[in-house]
Amino acid sequence: MAKKISKIAVLTSGGDAPGMNAAIRAVVRSCSYYSVSCVGVYRGYQGLIEGDFEDLDARSVRNIINKGGTFLKSTRSMEFKTKEGRAKAYEKLKEKGVDALIVIGGDGTFTGGLYLSQEFDIPIIGIPATIDNDINGTDFTLGYDTALNTVVEAIDKIRDTASSHNRLFLIEVMGRDAGDIALNSGIGAGAEEILIPEEETGADRLIDSLKRSKKSGKTSSIIVVAEGEKSGKNIFELAEFIEENLDDYEIRVSVLGHIQRGGSPSCADRVLASKLGVGAVEGLLDGKRGAMVGIHHQKVVFVPLEEAIKGEAKIDKELRRVADITSV
Amino acid sequence: MAKKISKIAVLTSGGDAPGMNAAIRAVVRSCSYYSVSCVGVYRGYQGLIEGDFEDLDARSVRNIINKGGTFLKSTRSMEFKTKEGRAKAYEKLKEKGVDALIVIGGDGTFTGGLYLSQEFDIPIIGIPATIDNDINGTDFTLGYDTALNTVVEAIDKIRDTASSHNRLFLIEVMGRDAGDIALNSGIGAGAEEILIPEEETGADRLIDSLKRSKKSGKTSSIIVVAEGEKSGKNIFELAEFIEENLDDYEIRVSVLGHIQRGGSPSCADRVLASKLGVGAVEGLLDGKRGAMVGIHHQKVVFVPLEEAIKGEAKIDKELRRVADITSV
Amino acid sequence: MAKKISKIAVLTSGGDAPGMNAAIRAVVRSCSYYSVSCVGVYRGYQGLIEGDFEDLDARSVRNIINKGGTFLKSTRSMEFKTKEGRAKAYEKLKEKGVDALIVIGGDGTFTGGLYLSQEFDIPIIGIPATIDNDINGTDFTLGYDTALNTVVEAIDKIRDTASSHNRLFLIEVMGRDAGDIALNSGIGAGAEEILIPEEETGADRLIDSLKRSKKSGKTSSIIVVAEGEKSGKNIFELAEFIEENLDDYEIRVSVLGHIQRGGSPSCADRVLASKLGVGAVEGLLDGKRGAMVGIHHQKVVFVPLEEAIKGEAKIDKELRRVADITSV
Amino acid sequence: MAKKISKIAVLTSGGDAPGMNAAIRAVVRSCSYYSVSCVGVYRGYQGLIEGDFEDLDARSVRNIINKGGTFLKSTRSMEFKTKEGRAKAYEKLKEKGVDALIVIGGDGTFTGGLYLSQEFDIPIIGIPATIDNDINGTDFTLGYDTALNTVVEAIDKIRDTASSHNRLFLIEVMGRDAGDIALNSGIGAGAEEILIPEEETGADRLIDSLKRSKKSGKTSSIIVVAEGEKSGKNIFELAEFIEENLDDYEIRVSVLGHIQRGGSPSCADRVLASKLGVGAVEGLLDGKRGAMVGIHHQKVVFVPLEEAIKGEAKIDKELRRVADITSV
Repeated sequence: MAKKISKIAVLTSGGDAPGMNAAIRAVVRSCSYYSVSCVGVYRGYQGLIEGDFEDLDARSVRNIINKGGTFLKSTRSMEFKTKEGRAKAYEKLKEKGVDALIVIGGDGTFTGGLYLSQEFDIPIIGIPATIDNDINGTDFTLGYDTALNTVVEAIDKIRDTASSHNRLFLIEVMGRDAGDIALNSGIGAGAEEILIPEEETGADRLIDSLKRSKKSGKTSSIIVVAEGEKSGKNIFELAEFIEENLDDYEIRVSVLGHIQRGGSPSCADRVLASKLGVGAVEGLLDGKRGAMVGIHHQKVVFVPLEEAIKGEAKIDKELRRVADITSV
Repeated sequence: MAKKISKIAVLTSGGDAPGMNAAIRAVVRSCSYYSVSCVGVYRGYQGLIEGDFEDLDARSVRNIINKGGTFLKSTRSMEFKTKEGRAKAYEKLKEKGVDALIVIGGDGTFTGGLYLSQEFDIPIIGIPATIDNDINGTDFTLGYDTALNTVVEAIDKIRDTASSHNRLFLIEVMGRDAGDIALNSGIGAGAEEILIPEEETGADRLIDSLKRSKKSGKTSSIIVVAEGEKSGKNIFELAEFIEENLDDYEIRVSVLGHIQRGGSPSCADRVLASKLGVGAVEGLLDGKRGAMVGIHHQKVVFVPLEEAIKGEAKIDKELRRVADITSV
Repeated sequence: MAKKISKIAVLTSGGDAPGMNAAIRAVVRSCSYYSVSCVGVYRGYQGLIEGDFEDLDARSVRNIINKGGTFLKSTRSMEFKTKEGRAKAYEKLKEKGVDALIVIGGDGTFTGGLYLSQEFDIPIIGIPATIDNDINGTDFTLGYDTALNTVVEAIDKIRDTASSHNRLFLIEVMGRDAGDIALNSGIGAGAEEILIPEEETGADRLIDSLKRSKKSGKTSSIIVVAEGEKSGKNIFELAEFIEENLDDYEIRVSVLGHIQRGGSPSCADRVLASKLGVGAVEGLLDGKRGAMVGIHHQKVVFVPLEEAIKGEAKIDKELRRVADITSV
Repeated sequence: MAKKISKIAVLTSGGDAPGMNAAIRAVVRSCSYYSVSCVGVYRGYQGLIEGDFEDLDARSVRNIINKGGTFLKSTRSMEFKTKEGRAKAYEKLKEKGVDALIVIGGDGTFTGGLYLSQEFDIPIIGIPATIDNDINGTDFTLGYDTALNTVVEAIDKIRDTASSHNRLFLIEVMGRDAGDIALNSGIGAGAEEILIPEEETGADRLIDSLKRSKKSGKTSSIIVVAEGEKSGKNIFELAEFIEENLDDYEIRVSVLGHIQRGGSPSCADRVLASKLGVGAVEGLLDGKRGAMVGIHHQKVVFVPLEEAIKGEAKIDKELRRVADITSV
């Protein structure tokens, strides 16, 4: 029979995402609700190895639900990628009397958690938090909805200038492997064209599309480009390519960059974080191990960590169609 | 065989909601994509009766995706509630050569559309747009996600004052019959208690809850109250009741009011509007009649208008549980 | 010769205002810069009486410049209004070895500070922080610029609904004695009429103005009303009065309330807070006593506290003229 | 005696800035107030040459006070830089019966206006609108306050990530010749160091400063860098230089770019636009010619265009001191 869980540790790891603090809060409050002790681990897996712990109670997490970033901080740990590192981490957990661990992060965070849970007898649940929405087995990851709002608000500002000057703007948004941010923010910002990693649209299609736009009377244009798109050109080269192939376009480039990771989480992200945080604690108490708690059709679900980290392109074809139609 | 549709009219009616402009844009662009003419109707059903029309093409709707309100404007029409009024409206549609109608709004809007479609030979599709999220057959209505963000941003500001002064704030949010705004924004804003129309929580439970909060060390509190909650007291009376029954609390009331209906739509609302706008036009071309286009599990679905207007309380018990746990 | 100052205490008192945290930060950092110790006093004058102190250094105030409210918290103290209360406060300051005091707040805060400085040998400097901008001897108070932005953003949202529905909105903003918020936000929000405490405009002028508006083709209207305006009617009575005297207007009332006090400070408020915080410390080190540090023509100035609390109506006639012309 | 002015034209030129629409609105409304006709010129000086005019009345400018960009649009005109081009422009003004011209923009806009006013008999007044705040003879230019808020909000988001990861961020903000944006937003965002064009701080001072920061216990840092700073390195080279000269710093670069030009204007910018728009029309009616209307000590002032375009470095030494002290 599984050991009764009376102390849970929680950490954040990898790139930060809006909603991480809200998720920590929900974990801590759920522990309090179920009379389980809760330990915060600072600086992710590195802090785990170093035993950088702090006891948390319901009052420790007041007034953080609306804060971006993560108050537990996050780092990359090279040491945790070694078996020795993970062994040290496990020792620290034992010393502290921790029975189970909740890890909040993305792909890399879950991979680390999976190794730890396979090598040592420690129940682990992951909460998906990354603005890229590139985790398998959950409809949404924490931070994604907030990032979409940040991107469309930024493009709204740029559109003021674009339409004042009849200019073409190329705007780079995050997304190395997943085009979800680009596709959704592109539709939301009314972009004329959207380049994503999952498609071989490339530079030529872009030129055709811009020619059509011009013919149909458009005088300014926004092109949203995911970091990882596949034209083989970076965004500045893409801008040059367009200038060479199209007359009459004054082109500007804007790389939105790190503003996309920060900011106060949207209501949807705060609610999702609350659901997943509660779900993670209840899952552990209920005997779930080595799993991610995700959201599917608005219900909390559990998925093996192995499944969650399978990077599968899941481009939403319906959404691509909507993008094409509404940018007519 | 159904008559081929070559001209579609679109109107907005009832209370405005963020995302209405984005939906109109998607309807117009879809018409353009499928080479169907599009006619905008100003001032809802009243404008329909008066023939207040304007031809719209793809360029007519540029730079509106990010605007709150509705550029087609909206009014209540007493005349349209009479059979004579609806007959006049139908005549105007025939004169203008309109083959089908898309109505954007809530409950009342759909009821009007249902009558029209039953009395006359005109295909009608409704797009659900109301911040209250109280339409049957769709997971979300347009404007709801934006309203949630508006509410949590407002409460975030108020919390600054609440925690600076150790005060108790009662905050009234919209929702006459549905507690969705209150429940979600309450969780998102970290409210200590949430009163919704679907529950008989009442004032006494609130007093108990506040006493527990105080005992657990909370020094400031936010109570979110839906307009339609069932304590039998209005929010100012509720404040007095608390002051009489609890010592040591300095209480303030804030009625958020009309700011909840306005503002630039969130990315999620813009994407939803785009999906539903495209869906409405494709539905009509595909032979759908007297239906609402909604979203269910992220897919576009069609529901008979009769179904959509069935007001059914659908309180999300899971969410209520999350609220109770995270406010510990 | 004045005693050398080697320890400064800082507190916030009265209603909170955005920028208070930024001012505390600047005080603490300036102390650090000039190698003076700094002590934070929690809960204003009440905390002073109770000796609720915490030593602050440069790192204590990191990441607070952008936070609304005041992390030192603020309360009203009845006890401090008595000579005995102030005597206790002075004792606590002596015990703690504090040589000088910086008080951040408005009118009431300065009055308290003035008494203390007159009755006991303690140098005091006040930093004006109140959203109402009603302090004499400074062009701007902390929080005022932020509040103006909060108000115009709220009215922008309401205008979406107003212009979608051709409605008249009466919007109440803060300002019991001073019309600065109403006048500036009214111009900024494009209000058709503005009612302020300094003028006897009254309800009749409003009716005339609305009749003119209507004649000139306006279809929706925003009226900004300061809390303390002098029509003798509250805003709901004013709405009824208009409905009785004008046909065809659907009227709505919105009381913006406490959202006006909160929120992340604007850049201008953060810079002003930084200037005033530095100025306060440098003023004390320079021998200034019983004074307020203010801003005049973008320069830091010192004004006796007696002057600062003289409530003088200072309606900006030029601005009233601008309001009248631009609302044509 | 000067000819009576009965028709005024207004245009926007150069880079767009938030508040341009509010200024156009104030010009149009003032014309209406003084019963003067008003003509809008599209696309700046190029539209002037081409006679791209539209009559504007008080209702033409409704609901634009809160919009970024300029609805009259703006372009650069090579042709207007020639005497022939300006002669054509003058002809078009005469044909249209225009008696005076108001030009809204920056440096280049005023230079064009100055030539036109010297070569032809046409009264011209300029309204300073540029986010850079680099115009002589006015305390503030339109758009500057809004840009500051945009920048600090963006850096607030980045700071979430910086402090979650203990990182150093280099953030490039606008300002080729003027450091006003960098200096004010740097103070407002709590930057550890600020590099501006007016100072020879350079890369070495930066290294020293970062070493001190580290020693004093800072774990994350924001460096704000004006576009035109004088280290001789671009921001990416600067990042490399720091990495080579300091251990233990994970460095990220963010170029804020075009978001700084857009967005809904702040209340202060809307009020300033209203004052300057009214001032421009009243100035013309009052006989002012070849002048800029500016703001000095909160009063409207008039300055010869020759003065306005004198690019004088006016670094605020007091503010630099405040930056140094508060970043301790």
